[in-house]
Amino acid sequence: MLSTMQDVPLTVTRILEHGVLVHGRSQITTWTGEGEPRRRSFAEAGVRAAQLAHALRDDLGVRADDRVATLMWNNAEHVEAYFAIPAMGAVLHTLNLRLPAEQLVWIVNHAADRVIIVNGSLIPLIAPLLPRLTTVEHIVVSGPGDRAPLAGGQARVHECEELLADKPTTFDWPEIDERQAAAMCYTSGTTGDPKGVVYSHRSIYLHSMQVNMTQSMGLTDRDTSLVVVPQFHVNAWGLPHATFMTGVNMLMPDRFLQPAPLAEMIETERPTHAAAVPTIWQGLLGELHAKPRDVSSLTQVTIGGSACPPSLMEAFDQLGMRVCHAWGMTETSPLGTVARPPAHAVGTEEEFAYRLTQGRFPAGVEARLTGPGGERLPRDGTSAGELEVRGPWIAGAYYNGPDAEPLRPADKFSEDGWLKTGDVGTISPEGFLTLTDRAKDVIKSGGEWISSVDLENALMSHPDVAEAAVVAVPDDRWGERPLATVVLKDGATTDFETLRVFLAEERRIAKWQLPERWTVIASVPKTSVGKFDKKVLRRQYADGQLDVTHL
Amino acid sequence: MLSTMQDVPLTVTRILEHGVLVHGRSQITTWTGEGEPRRRSFAEAGVRAAQLAHALRDDLGVRADDRVATLMWNNAEHVEAYFAIPAMGAVLHTLNLRLPAEQLVWIVNHAADRVIIVNGSLIPLIAPLLPRLTTVEHIVVSGPGDRAPLAGGQARVHECEELLADKPTTFDWPEIDERQAAAMCYTSGTTGDPKGVVYSHRSIYLHSMQVNMTQSMGLTDRDTSLVVVPQFHVNAWGLPHATFMTGVNMLMPDRFLQPAPLAEMIETERPTHAAAVPTIWQGLLGELHAKPRDVSSLTQVTIGGSACPPSLMEAFDQLGMRVCHAWGMTETSPLGTVARPPAHAVGTEEEFAYRLTQGRFPAGVEARLTGPGGERLPRDGTSAGELEVRGPWIAGAYYNGPDAEPLRPADKFSEDGWLKTGDVGTISPEGFLTLTDRAKDVIKSGGEWISSVDLENALMSHPDVAEAAVVAVPDDRWGERPLATVVLKDGATTDFETLRVFLAEERRIAKWQLPERWTVIASVPKTSVGKFDKKVLRRQYADGQLDVTHL
Repeated sequence: MLSTMQDVPLTVTRILEHGVLVHGRSQITTWTGEGEPRRRSFAEAGVRAAQLAHALRDDLGVRADDRVATLMWNNAEHVEAYFAIPAMGAVLHTLNLRLPAEQLVWIVNHAADRVIIVNGSLIPLIAPLLPRLTTVEHIVVSGPGDRAPLAGGQARVHECEELLADKPTTFDWPEIDERQAAAMCYTSGTTGDPKGVVYSHRSIYLHSMQVNMTQSMGLTDRDTSLVVVPQFHVNAWGLPHATFMTGVNMLMPDRFLQPAPLAEMIETERPTHAAAVPTIWQGLLGELHAKPRDVSSLTQVTIGGSACPPSLMEAFDQLGMRVCHAWGMTETSPLGTVARPPAHAVGTEEEFAYRLTQGRFPAGVEARLTGPGGERLPRDGTSAGELEVRGPWIAGAYYNGPDAEPLRPADKFSEDGWLKTGDVGTISPEGFLTLTDRAKDVIKSGGEWISSVDLENALMSHPDVAEAAVVAVPDDRWGERPLATVVLKDGATTDFETLRVFLAEERRIAKWQLPERWTVIASVPKTSVGKFDKKVLRRQYADGQLDVTHL
Repeated sequence: MLSTMQDVPLTVTRILEHGVLVHGRSQITTWTGEGEPRRRSFAEAGVRAAQLAHALRDDLGVRADDRVATLMWNNAEHVEAYFAIPAMGAVLHTLNLRLPAEQLVWIVNHAADRVIIVNGSLIPLIAPLLPRLTTVEHIVVSGPGDRAPLAGGQARVHECEELLADKPTTFDWPEIDERQAAAMCYTSGTTGDPKGVVYSHRSIYLHSMQVNMTQSMGLTDRDTSLVVVPQFHVNAWGLPHATFMTGVNMLMPDRFLQPAPLAEMIETERPTHAAAVPTIWQGLLGELHAKPRDVSSLTQVTIGGSACPPSLMEAFDQLGMRVCHAWGMTETSPLGTVARPPAHAVGTEEEFAYRLTQGRFPAGVEARLTGPGGERLPRDGTSAGELEVRGPWIAGAYYNGPDAEPLRPADKFSEDGWLKTGDVGTISPEGFLTLTDRAKDVIKSGGEWISSVDLENALMSHPDVAEAAVVAVPDDRWGERPLATVVLKDGATTDFETLRVFLAEERRIAKWQLPERWTVIASVPKTSVGKFDKKVLRRQYADGQLDVTHL
């Protein structure tokens, strides 16, 4: 039996219209590095979004489904693009300015971007690549920066402000099906080609509601959010959309992401909330210790991207900034879990432990764990398996061109359509996720899993160990066993047997999980973003380049 | 271009599963009047919901789309029915136990309810009607009460607890399209037959997310909500669904809605939030003045249904209970607006005025005003027109039987599908709604509207006036003009000219709005729920029964 409710689509357009109409006086403040920040109300941003849509359609010929890319910092103009492009029926494609040039070229060509909107300061990055961007017809430049390197290419170059100057201040936004593409973002996987996730109007709308729920970020128009997480990184965790839905003010750092300007903008603009990865916060903490600032306005900090070290969480607590862990990925829009402690733990000794988990699943994210043999594992807080998730803002495939069938690789999506996250962890009976490893790094030993991260953390807690990486190596009897690679501190002479006893006795690592294979290395190989590059270690072991001791 | 996101439906089933799995230890506490309240965890309620679904399907033969009615107070068993019935694919039909018998019979027959679940204490209400309920095959009785009056009818009578006793504790809930009917509720309009609103799984899910947003009720698992608003009244404002989504505990008063037990349950169970209509709160206030209680836990009170008098709001503020106004109707699920003051007004003299408005529209509710001539009016805070709304949890039609086309009467729905609320008011530039009248009571004078409520409030502020009702009467020149009917206080001798000057000079009523026609009456006729019955006055005027003075 059908309901009698109205059939109104959930669209980015609706979020834009609401933000402009009801929260028109809320502000987007963009840091400029010198002098006054650029201040723009949601109402003004709405006018400029309409003008941008006119420019894209009337001057540049952008049509429904065309991909319009952005290569921009976090700023008001990028927010305007966030709304104008999906609302006009085109697809926003945010480009990650930290990617290697090769990947950037591959991604732009794969998405078949027709237009790129670029911040002037990023022209040196894009200009050398232009000859290889086969589908790009127009470059729109926003903000200061030398335009000269763009000259002479086949793409037409436009000044954003000139395009907008004479345009009508409203746009007759088209009706859009909520399942239509609104935005896309490529994951920068360490193996294989990057994979495109295409967000729908529906998924963005629902995700925005979730962000605004009290047990997620739950901000209101009394808040100002310092959005450090880049807009090219999973839609800045949904904040530009969520803030327009509820009138939360945004403070945008533009390219000033160093600790000193961040500390200065917190002191002078007084945000109440901030969102960023741990690395940024670690830097800010050092800055604040070196040069104390009044950061008392900032009481809520959302940390995601990778796990927040306990010491960092404690340090921020002491500054009056309450850290809230969240977990997600490009494929999850990204809000997958938020670490709000359950009611019974608030104010108890358990509370901090809950805050160190990845967090609790909201109603919109179903979760299950799959064990080494493909079996479902219980949500008992101890059984570790690969996390699979399902929900209306979770990817069910990857982009494969506008007319091709989407890609559903079997290592990424289950047969019944769930996303295989590649993360290994446990789920407690109360729905809290604790991640212990990446699936590709877990050690599969005799039908059981050994967490490489647990072993590494245990080893690194020994006073003589500077760094440690544990990788799986083949073993005739067990399938795989852990290899412990250890970087000793200068002058340390600890032997492997001592470390093994330390793991067993002090760190309570189960006997069957203790490594037999040990080696000392000069340093752990790292990826371009600073993560342990374990495939290098596995290769060195396979090639016999490591001097391994068997205990 | 299609997105690559998963296509996961928004269903009541998902809310149930999430509440049971992630918030299983949250509680539904049902007041029993004597002794310990009945305490049940969400996990236990989930088991019982599964058992109820088995009973309905396996024992009673309920199939997809069948209507299963409830005639129940607010209690844990009613919450279980809220989830079991929609999740099994049937349609929950909540019956308003305060309706006149004739309407109840009409509604049950119109909905073609196959089953009624009834609280034992309500058997005296339903038993006499049974012979006229032509579609009802089964009566399921829950809780104490004499069963004897049910005997001998053609409907089979079942004990709820006996039905559940031997049933499996899980149910293989079917996949459901989110646009399918989940629940229905009839409006008790004062004119014409009652009209059925059929909520979809989608509308309930989205409305639940909205209720949980910080700028709506925004409760968490640290809260306990005292749900006084009946579950037969627009899904108890969405609270049973919203609480399962986020683990908010529920305190259910069952049939103990008198001020004394309400005060007692607040003191002993310490809810943090409560939701009810003003009448309930007025009674509670009197009780608390007569017999002070510790009600310090209760800091947030949602009031809707009709406007909260300023004096009541102030009185609750003084008790530490922060009143938050909300506006809605059966057709709006009901959350239409919530009166959270905007950031700039918080802590200023303006704040109270914002709290007295009906509230601000969330992103999910689009609003517009239509003037006397059908024209769109500006959102300027002064232009008054009929409020029309649009959104995914707003009705677009009324129920007309399972196989018939839905009803879309032109006085209730615009040609482009918006709901005509029948409420007249203004919208501020910031999206705050202030209602001034019901559309049927507004006076249409020379192409302009005069608010009957404004004139009444102004008249009733005169020290000699006990009550005043203003109605539209036909006028040759202006179409309609206001007739002021006044009840004077005992011994008062004020004349009409004095009142007219008082309106103009003291109350700043515009000259063209001042009534020319005046009459004194003994008392204002009232409806069964205590509202002014203006159609009686209009008829008395038309019949020449009133002694009218022309000024």
